[in-house]
Formats: sequence, structure tokens, C-alpha cells
Amino acid sequence: MIEANLDDQTGEGLGYVMDQLLTAGAYDVFFTPIQMKKNRPAIKLTVLGNPQERAALTKLILAETTTIGVRYQTWQRTIMQRHFVTVATPYGNVQVKVATYEGIEKRMPEYADCAQLAQQFHIPFRTVYQAALVAVEQLNNEDD
Amino acid sequence: MIEANLDDQTGEGLGYVMDQLLTAGAYDVFFTPIQMKKNRPAIKLTVLGNPQERAALTKLILAETTTIGVRYQTWQRTIMQRHFVTVATPYGNVQVKVATYEGIEKRMPEYADCAQLAQQFHIPFRTVYQAALVAVEQLNNEDD
Amino acid sequence: MIEANLDDQTGEGLGYVMDQLLTAGAYDVFFTPIQMKKNRPAIKLTVLGNPQERAALTKLILAETTTIGVRYQTWQRTIMQRHFVTVATPYGNVQVKVATYEGIEKRMPEYADCAQLAQQFHIPFRTVYQAALVAVEQLNNEDD
Amino acid sequence: MIEANLDDQTGEGLGYVMDQLLTAGAYDVFFTPIQMKKNRPAIKLTVLGNPQERAALTKLILAETTTIGVRYQTWQRTIMQRHFVTVATPYGNVQVKVATYEGIEKRMPEYADCAQLAQQFHIPFRTVYQAALVAVEQLNNEDD
Amino acid sequence: MIEANLDDQTGEGLGYVMDQLLTAGAYDVFFTPIQMKKNRPAIKLTVLGNPQERAALTKLILAETTTIGVRYQTWQRTIMQRHFVTVATPYGNVQVKVATYEGIEKRMPEYADCAQLAQQFHIPFRTVYQAALVAVEQLNNEDD
Amino acid sequence: MIEANLDDQTGEGLGYVMDQLLTAGAYDVFFTPIQMKKNRPAIKLTVLGNPQERAALTKLILAETTTIGVRYQTWQRTIMQRHFVTVATPYGNVQVKVATYEGIEKRMPEYADCAQLAQQFHIPFRTVYQAALVAVEQLNNEDD
Repeated sequence: MIEANLDDQTGEGLGYVMDQLLTAGAYDVFFTPIQMKKNRPAIKLTVLGNPQERAALTKLILAETTTIGVRYQTWQRTIMQRHFVTVATPYGNVQVKVATYEGIEKRMPEYADCAQLAQQFHIPFRTVYQAALVAVEQLNNEDD
Repeated sequence: MIEANLDDQTGEGLGYVMDQLLTAGAYDVFFTPIQMKKNRPAIKLTVLGNPQERAALTKLILAETTTIGVRYQTWQRTIMQRHFVTVATPYGNVQVKVATYEGIEKRMPEYADCAQLAQQFHIPFRTVYQAALVAVEQLNNEDD
Repeated sequence: MIEANLDDQTGEGLGYVMDQLLTAGAYDVFFTPIQMKKNRPAIKLTVLGNPQERAALTKLILAETTTIGVRYQTWQRTIMQRHFVTVATPYGNVQVKVATYEGIEKRMPEYADCAQLAQQFHIPFRTVYQAALVAVEQLNNEDD
Repeated sequence: MIEANLDDQTGEGLGYVMDQLLTAGAYDVFFTPIQMKKNRPAIKLTVLGNPQERAALTKLILAETTTIGVRYQTWQRTIMQRHFVTVATPYGNVQVKVATYEGIEKRMPEYADCAQLAQQFHIPFRTVYQAALVAVEQLNNEDD
Repeated sequence: MIEANLDDQTGEGLGYVMDQLLTAGAYDVFFTPIQMKKNRPAIKLTVLGNPQERAALTKLILAETTTIGVRYQTWQRTIMQRHFVTVATPYGNVQVKVATYEGIEKRMPEYADCAQLAQQFHIPFRTVYQAALVAVEQLNNEDD
Repeated sequence: MIEANLDDQTGEGLGYVMDQLLTAGAYDVFFTPIQMKKNRPAIKLTVLGNPQERAALTKLILAETTTIGVRYQTWQRTIMQRHFVTVATPYGNVQVKVATYEGIEKRMPEYADCAQLAQQFHIPFRTVYQAALVAVEQLNNEDD
């Protein structure tokens, strides 16, 4: 986890750097609103990535933002096993992420598939998403 | 109430503009963290002021920030009556704001007085503030 | 809509006042983190309520918080028609809110019912909620 | 200005609805983190648009989100006059927005042009942006 | 400290999981508003707990939320010594937490006691809290 | 990095403690809005400092705030080399921070100098800042 506090960077520039960091291989990038000295609203940039990528991600942050330093630290992670199945909805097929860990199993429709079908059929995103959840549940029941 | 969304302004510049607006006569100025399009973290600037000052405050916002427009609207206000009394604490006198409204009475130690005594005596701010609250309560009891 | 900025109130006291305002008949009460002068993090309290209740809600805010004034303004509202139906899930019945407006129809499981069944059966909230969504969809299909 | 509080909507769905509202002609769409009853973190959705578009934008919000109501109110706006000029940087041309209002004149490089050149030349966004600011200043000086 | 970023979870579900985690023995649970890719407002869930409870708390997070992974790390803590004393206010007894550390001593009225008396006497929370602070100060003075 | 969650501290007191911590030698102090149990909005205080100063900074936090404990952990840092140069603008000299790291070089006008000149000449902060950026770029070009 790499962090930097940014109080002399514009929001425009931050949107740009998020894209650059994700393209460069960061697992995840997020912004937290913070409040710094001298009445300055600021943003804490957090970048999660592979430790092997730390030097490259650090260099990208220093090149693209106004910060003159970053701080970092290794966190451990517990990640569920994942695979994908496809379910049929009235609007077309949707990929479903199946995540498992010590007896827990979660099945979650993929955002991108639901969004694409919603736009194609001019229907609410929620309608496709719920249809996918129904298809997922039926899949669950057939498995039992 | 005047508002502007700022996504291309630095936090440094925002701290500066808060000071300028307060100096120019705004009742209050505050920042709210918001999230705009294209993954841009941004700040909503809100300025409360006398309607007669709206043109001057608007011009100051347009001159000092990167926004190309502001929005505004008149809100009504309900304000308590206020006067000040002085109470004695072990560390010296503290001004107390007394606010009243339809049978409600609140007495609140002034921040600046407590902060100044805390620094003078090298004691926690909390210690002076609580001493002032005690003095306020005793004042309350003598009044009854 | 009634608003007040609070920079000399504790979070404990704010949790308390939210309860009081909801009990007193506010439609909704919410907190927004803001940043005020002198490096003070603060909270904007927003209370939505019936205009007839404004005087009572104002008095409650002035009595329970440290603010010495509130601001207010009337907003218009567009509200969907609502009624409730009950659906059966494997874990028991769940009330479903049905909201309609100009051809839009949304059916949403009630939080409280799902939470209660999740606790009763020692299963995740998500499991009950998704089961209720499935039952809702089947209700939709029967209607067509 | 149209607002809705959303405590039963996912962040994924909110990213989707922001795109839909901008496509439908909203001037601006932004999210503010708020805190609602029952320990629920939530998002306030704010949509700025032409009053003539209010009915259409309201219907889109009700269709795409889980809210059962929106609130709205007309704000006045003060907007600077705008036109565009083109400046030459070492990396290519950049459009510059020139905004004027009662003697104030601001010239701001367009984000999209700077971002595109930064990606083309594999250089930091900041480098292009500052080069554009320099070109803008030189334009200012020639004007005098 | 266990953390997870949640962009596909509703606020309703998050209020529920906070209760579950506190019931399961977490020291503390809190939410931080963050901003993730694709214009998604999200919540960072942070859980503080005994390292021995980490596996159980992790499993609860994975079961109750939509995240497919958590990250964690051990932090050191410096905690003040605590004991409770009871003080008398005009409204009844209030427990006071006394915390000490290397010559620092803080005495803080318990929230729950103040809230309960405020409701019982139909008086502001602030009134009871300040009365308890006064009683605490008097306790301080008797000690000297 | 030292952190404490504060739900029974006022914003006034927090502005005071930020000043105290910076005076005591902290590298940086910032506030993050968080949401704690029982509907309490709260602030996470983060203090960055030299590990040798940890005991002193911890004691200051415990003395000045209402928290009964802090948590801490050591982070590694990557910091750019820095030196200052002076550039001439039409309004006077401005110090420019030059930061370098593995081939990256950034030159950033000092906030305090720009703010002072803006106030002296009654011109927008942005005007001085951009003039300093232009002077910085010209310096860059002369260097090549």
C-alpha cells in the first residue's frame, strides 16, 4: 500500500493519475478526502499493488503528481477463490463471479455485462442486475 | 448562499480563498468534499453572506478560483439572541456567549479565550474549556 | 429543509440529536462532513420535514445542539406512489415496497424484514435480501 | 438542482447513473458522502440542469436508482462569458478557455487537450499543463 | 486492523454488518467515504480487533459483504489506564470514566448515562452532560 | 504514523490540537471524516512524525483530546531530493521548490511567497502563481 497526501493538485489531474496508475498495473487506486493544515482540503491517494511493482508505481506517482514523497507499507491479504459462470437472463447472458472461502460462497453478476445489456435494451441497470441475481439464485438451487 | 464546484483548483488555493472571503465580509465559508465526473475528487465551496454582499462575494469567487460560474439562492434564518458575560476560571477570565430563544438558554465559553489561556499556562485546551463550563454552570445557579 | 453547521458539538451528541429529531417527526436527518475556518472539521446537519413542523424542529435543534442559528428553505418534492406486498422466501415472509411513477415500477424488499430473518437463521443479510429479490421478480413475472 | 439521498444503492450503480444523467443532458452531476440513520453511509446525488429538463431528469433518477422520491429547487446562476483560443506548446496545440466577467479575465488550458498530448508523448500531465499555462501567459502579455 | 473497500454494497447492508461485527467482538468498526475507479463512490470498512479474532472477523466480513478480499496489518496501541467513578448531578448519578497515563488524568462522563437522564427528564443532552462535567470538576478539586 | 478516532471531541478543539501537534514537531497532521457506531460522525486524527518523537506526540494527543488510546505503526518513505531557487515575477521574487528523483524533476512555486505578493498587490493568488510557473518554465529552458 502506497499513500500520498495531495493539497496542491487539481481534481482534474487526479482523475488522470488514477487512469495512469491502473494502466500501469495497480490492483486498486482510491481517493479519500482529508483536511490538512492552513484550511486546505486535500486528497489522500492510496495505491494497492504487487510489492514487485512498488518502485514503478512510486515513480509514476512522483512524476504525475505534485507530492515530493510517498509512504508505503506491506499489508497481508485474504482473498477468496474466484471463478466465473454464465447465466441467462431475459436480456442475454451475464457473467457471474463466484467467490468461495471456507464454506462461504457468493455469486455476483458482473457490472460490465449488466451495464452493456441495460444500454442495449434501454432499460434500467437495476432491472438487468436483479434479473441476473434471479438467474444466479436458480443456479444455486439447481446445484443443491 | 453561494455555491461553486471546484475540480481544477488546488487545496492550497482554497485555503487562501477562504481567508479572502471571510475578510471580505462573508458570514461563513465552508468546504464539502464531492465527487465529480471523470473520476475527479472536487470541493464544493459554500459562502453564506448578506444578500447585499452577493455581487461582491461572487466577484471575489470568480477572480480567485478557477470556476467559471456560481449558483446562489436566498435561505431564511432563525438566529438566537446573543450577549456575552465574563466568568472567572482558575486560569483567568473567559468570555461566555449566552444565546436565548423562546425559553432556551445556552451558555458557551468562547474558543479564543480558552485557547489563549491554555497556551499561556501550558495546559490542555480541554482543561480550560471545562473550567469555563463549570464557571458557567455556577453562574446559571446564581441566576435561579 | 433545515440546515445548521456544527463545529463545537461532539459526535456523541450528534448521534443523540439524530434520534431526537426522527422521534419528533422529521422525514429524514443526515450528516455531511464539512471543513470550516480555523482548521475545524465540522458536520452539516440537514433535517427534512413537513413545513408545518419547521418551528418545532428548529426549536429542537437549537435546544439540543450548540448552534446559535439555523437556515431553512422550502424544496419541492416528486414522490412515487407506494404500497406494500408480501412475498415468501425460503426463510419466511418479507414485505416488499412497490413504488410506481409514470410507468416506472420498482419493487424493493424491506430492510427490517430481511435483517430480522438473517439474524433468526444465522445467515448473511445478503442471502435473505437476494432471496427476496428473486421472490419479487417471480411476482413481477406472474403479473405480466 | 435535483437531489436524492441513496442508502440502498451500490457504488457500481451510481457510477452508471452518473453517465446516464450526463448523457441525458444534465449540466453537472456530483456525489456527496453523507451519513443517514441506522449507521448507514449513503450518497447524496445532486443533478444540475436546465429547468425544462427537470421532468426528464427526475424520471431517469427514479428509474435508475432505488430512491422513491427526489427534491428540487431552482437556483440562480452567474456565469462568466467564455470563448476559446488556441495556444502552441512544445508538444502541440492546446485549446484555452478564456472566461471574462466585469473586468476579470481567466485563461485555462483544456483538460482533454493536455491529457491527450501527455499520453502521446509519454510525459507527465503536469508538464503539458504547465507548458500550456506558460503559453497562455505569453498570450496575455502580447495582448497588453 | 482489517480493511476492505466496498463499491457494490448498499448503505443498508453496511449498517447491518457494523452491528454484526461489534456483536462478534470487534473493538471498533468504522466507515470512511472513498472514491474508486469508474466514478464509483465507495466505503472503506475498517475493523479493529484482537489479533486472535482476526480469522473470525475476516470470515464475517467475507460472508456479510460483497468484497472478495480483505487486507490486514497489526498496529501497536498505547492505551490509558481506566476506571469508573460515579458523580451526582441534579438529575441523578452519572458514571464517569477516569483515564490516566504518565501524569495525564482525564475524567469524561459516560454517554449512555447522560442520554438516559436527558430522555427521562425531557431536557437537552447537553444540559446533563455539562452538569456531569461540573460534578467531575468538583470531584477533581476535592481530590487535590 | 499515529492514529486516533475521535467521536467526543469538538471541531474547535481539533483545530487547536492540529496547531499544537505541528508546533511540537509533527511532519504532518490531517483529519479524515469517518462514521462510527451509534450514528456518530467522527474524525480520524493522523499524525506523521519522526519515530523518535512518537512518545512525545502520543502524550500530546492523549492530553489534548478525549481519546483514551492511540494506535501506531512505522511506514517507510520515499522522498525526493529538494532545494530552492528564486525566480523573478512581475510582482517580485518567489521561492521555487525543486524536487528531483531518478531523472524526475519538478519545480513548484512556494505557496507562502505567492500568497504574500497576491495580498500586497491586491491581485488574485492564481495570477501570482501562474506568473511564478512561467518564470519556472523559463528557468527550465535556460537550463537545457
